[in-house]
Amino acid sequence: MMISPREKYRPFPQVQLADRQWPNKTITAPPVWCSVDLRDGNQSLIEPMGLDRKMRMFDALLKMGFKEIEVGFPSASQTDFDFVRHLIEGNKIPDGVTIQVLTQSREELIRRTFESLKGVKSAIVHLYNSTSELQRRVVFKLDKPGIVDIAVKGATLIRKLEKEFGMEEVIRHEYSPESFTGTELDFAKEICEAVIDCYEPTPQKKLILNLPATVEMSTPNVHADQIEWFCRNIKKRDSVLISLHPHNDRGCAVAATELGLLAGADRVEGTLFGNGERTGNVDIITLAMNMYSQGVDPGLDCSNINELVRMAEYCNQLPIHPRHPYAGELVFTAFSGSHQDAINKGFKAMAASNAPLWEVPYLPIDPMDLGRSYEAVIRINSQSGKGGIAYILEKEHGIELPRRLQIEFSKVVQAIADGEGVELAADRLWSSFEQEYLEGNGRYGFVSHSASADQTEQDVVAKITVDGNLKTILGHGNGPVDGFVDAIRKESGLNFDVADYREHAIGMGANAAAIAYVELRLPDGSSLFGVGIDKNIVVASLKAVISGVNRALKKH
Amino acid sequence: MMISPREKYRPFPQVQLADRQWPNKTITAPPVWCSVDLRDGNQSLIEPMGLDRKMRMFDALLKMGFKEIEVGFPSASQTDFDFVRHLIEGNKIPDGVTIQVLTQSREELIRRTFESLKGVKSAIVHLYNSTSELQRRVVFKLDKPGIVDIAVKGATLIRKLEKEFGMEEVIRHEYSPESFTGTELDFAKEICEAVIDCYEPTPQKKLILNLPATVEMSTPNVHADQIEWFCRNIKKRDSVLISLHPHNDRGCAVAATELGLLAGADRVEGTLFGNGERTGNVDIITLAMNMYSQGVDPGLDCSNINELVRMAEYCNQLPIHPRHPYAGELVFTAFSGSHQDAINKGFKAMAASNAPLWEVPYLPIDPMDLGRSYEAVIRINSQSGKGGIAYILEKEHGIELPRRLQIEFSKVVQAIADGEGVELAADRLWSSFEQEYLEGNGRYGFVSHSASADQTEQDVVAKITVDGNLKTILGHGNGPVDGFVDAIRKESGLNFDVADYREHAIGMGANAAAIAYVELRLPDGSSLFGVGIDKNIVVASLKAVISGVNRALKKH
Repeated sequence: MMISPREKYRPFPQVQLADRQWPNKTITAPPVWCSVDLRDGNQSLIEPMGLDRKMRMFDALLKMGFKEIEVGFPSASQTDFDFVRHLIEGNKIPDGVTIQVLTQSREELIRRTFESLKGVKSAIVHLYNSTSELQRRVVFKLDKPGIVDIAVKGATLIRKLEKEFGMEEVIRHEYSPESFTGTELDFAKEICEAVIDCYEPTPQKKLILNLPATVEMSTPNVHADQIEWFCRNIKKRDSVLISLHPHNDRGCAVAATELGLLAGADRVEGTLFGNGERTGNVDIITLAMNMYSQGVDPGLDCSNINELVRMAEYCNQLPIHPRHPYAGELVFTAFSGSHQDAINKGFKAMAASNAPLWEVPYLPIDPMDLGRSYEAVIRINSQSGKGGIAYILEKEHGIELPRRLQIEFSKVVQAIADGEGVELAADRLWSSFEQEYLEGNGRYGFVSHSASADQTEQDVVAKITVDGNLKTILGHGNGPVDGFVDAIRKESGLNFDVADYREHAIGMGANAAAIAYVELRLPDGSSLFGVGIDKNIVVASLKAVISGVNRALKKH
Repeated sequence: MMISPREKYRPFPQVQLADRQWPNKTITAPPVWCSVDLRDGNQSLIEPMGLDRKMRMFDALLKMGFKEIEVGFPSASQTDFDFVRHLIEGNKIPDGVTIQVLTQSREELIRRTFESLKGVKSAIVHLYNSTSELQRRVVFKLDKPGIVDIAVKGATLIRKLEKEFGMEEVIRHEYSPESFTGTELDFAKEICEAVIDCYEPTPQKKLILNLPATVEMSTPNVHADQIEWFCRNIKKRDSVLISLHPHNDRGCAVAATELGLLAGADRVEGTLFGNGERTGNVDIITLAMNMYSQGVDPGLDCSNINELVRMAEYCNQLPIHPRHPYAGELVFTAFSGSHQDAINKGFKAMAASNAPLWEVPYLPIDPMDLGRSYEAVIRINSQSGKGGIAYILEKEHGIELPRRLQIEFSKVVQAIADGEGVELAADRLWSSFEQEYLEGNGRYGFVSHSASADQTEQDVVAKITVDGNLKTILGHGNGPVDGFVDAIRKESGLNFDVADYREHAIGMGANAAAIAYVELRLPDGSSLFGVGIDKNIVVASLKAVISGVNRALKKH
């Protein structure tokens, strides 16, 4: 049982702001966007990006249209330092794009940061220190003046170094009172104003004051009150840009950002699909598409969302959830018959009216705007009590198709469904799978093989059928599969490689069998799968090879 | 490039509510919770739940403390009808718990709904029809009176049937103007008041008016304005419960719900972890834990969040994202050294003060309250440029550990790290893996085997080493692995089964090898893994069996 939270947690205090204005506002223009996807270990990847992944992410961010990109914490990480040098020395930063580097307020880190920036055309030095009541008391054991002193010393040193390095014209300034959401508002104002006094910003050269929800601690309306209070009370408002940096601990980062923009913020730091520490940063793509869906051009190009998903999954090695707004694989799928009916009527009405306005029930935006489609999604109607292809095969037959094979087989199913004009029932699915992949699917058939396995190379003797006639083939390789591939390659004349191989048990005990999936790479660079099932794991693999070869021969 | 959205989308209109009160409110008590996890196909599972999964979900919901559970759409789905009958006839619904059933406003569906409810002790009949301007125009092609008529006819029939069935005392009423967020507020009021006139609710027997954000269409403050307007303008407010049913199209469902509660709503319909159509329903667990983190007892028990995650993943066949608030596997993990330092100082300060208040930087709540822990999470510090165990092994060695093996091996790593007092570097990780799982890890060693594979049972002759001495063993089985398992079982006296087997390629071409993972189930019911690598897929499997047996013998 859960304990009562009354003693252990306390409500977040409200902001005294009876005349708040933000609830009357709407978002009519995008903020300045800053991606912090490339921040170092702080983005908390299980496998932090190396140079190749960072470059791939950086290029994708440029392509989307980001003009400000935080590229790391060069003084804390050699990888990040090297990446900044790579960008500058390799001339990878287009004109009009500013890179941003993070640094704590410590002399050796700030000096190292400047070392990393030599030769840069435009950079934001992002200085931070933690200001919350809890961190002052528990972590830094300093009073307020001590914490202000950390920030002021850092800012002062930055101004000194940019003169020394001759970089006054190319360096812009950002300061974050880290853990802003846990900081008393008047103290946040005090420390930010002390930093303003150091940097002497002007309306022409503004200081970015970034107010991080390092931990999301309240309902988003309170966050908006904090931001509005700050915007209304900070001095030299015309010389500062107010930046948001929300985290998602309470699942409200998108809302907190939107309400923070209503409250007067000018700029947003976040990540693609909301990656980041713990529950992540705010998801810039959702923010951008939310604006887009209200007729506001976000200034970021998300028109190939699938490519962005693949890129982010590759760089971050974390999945995008199937129900992730705008990007998840299920978000433009309708399963319910009544929804499908309404959507179809919406499409028809739009076609009839020929008006530009998007008006389709249950589809808040046109999937085509993201490079996706409503119709192309292949599902068996769940209203009829059935499920998706992969799930049916897993549930009813215990087989777990590799993802690329799922895609390949879904096209097979789609072709059958299109031809017959109906969706496929579960048993029909299985028979289609059998027909496409399993025994008897083409010219060759497996009969038997023999190979005495030892630690070294070996000869394989296999019996197969060729158009129904028994034949013995010979091959040589590292093991039975490799040897068999050699044999069938010679027999068929098909010059393929094995690109991937996977095998798993189906069932348990005496009835257990193995299913093998072999992905063949063909001479033209395309690839396709073969599948084999047998109680003997070797035989399953060899059957899978035969299955793939049969399919390849049919297609070529 | 993205097209300009200006012609295609329009901003959502604001609500005229200059004197709104909700931004001054705080949440001080939980709403009435209603789970809609068991709604039929509308929850858009790829594989809809059958009876066993529905029961598992239902039992979990009861255990959490839900008092209202929507159990399906019995008139639309035989599975749902059968489930309702199963609950009633099997006496599965505890006293104090009300089941809810959904129905469209059509006579045959309502009649069938009542059939499903015979003998129930307490049920909510949830009537809905779509009311948005778009659906009226495009889908139903009816004017407002026509749409009101649908609702009124349904409600009138429900009152008639509950008399006929003698169920007046056990039936409660709910009405949803579906697509409420796209409905003009004055029309939503009009149709709900027409339904109020049918049901004649009283403060003792309230009508639930559920206002669905069927599609999330605006920033959450506008949703709150809609709810406050409705609460302030609906007649007989003391005789109705205002219920929210937000979807997450804009990623703001949690926020929309929280602000909707500030705006006066009494009740929330949602799902565990936010499953549901497209982007999902609002996540009740996040809502509950958000309240909990502010000292408000949500009245729902989430104290074993991992069990809830497993249950939901099993029932829904959809994953919980690693960064999902409160539940994701990464949300109580700190990777950054400065965060780890601050967290440790927070723990120490709490221990020293011995105060009940939770005050740890970067951990908004105590992971223990969810049955989780901060310390138990085993990660290699990413600040140092390294990654997680599984990712390092995959990246540097191309091997993809099965999830249960990841968990098993992480304990091995933890034990070494604890013993040495340092985290393991990447090369040390690999040597630990080799030492634990790969060749020479115990009493037995693999030398060679021979078996001529054919389609039937076979004898296996294998050479192994036993404490360094060569020995030949014999076995019989379905294939080489099965036969070898038989032989080694007899030799070792260890009566194990193979619970799972997985194998995949590492590398490609001439240098390709296979890695096999075999999970052994031991006589005491525990299980452990063995791993083998070889160019020959059979040898890899046999080595994996040997590896597992060696490990089992060491542990017993």
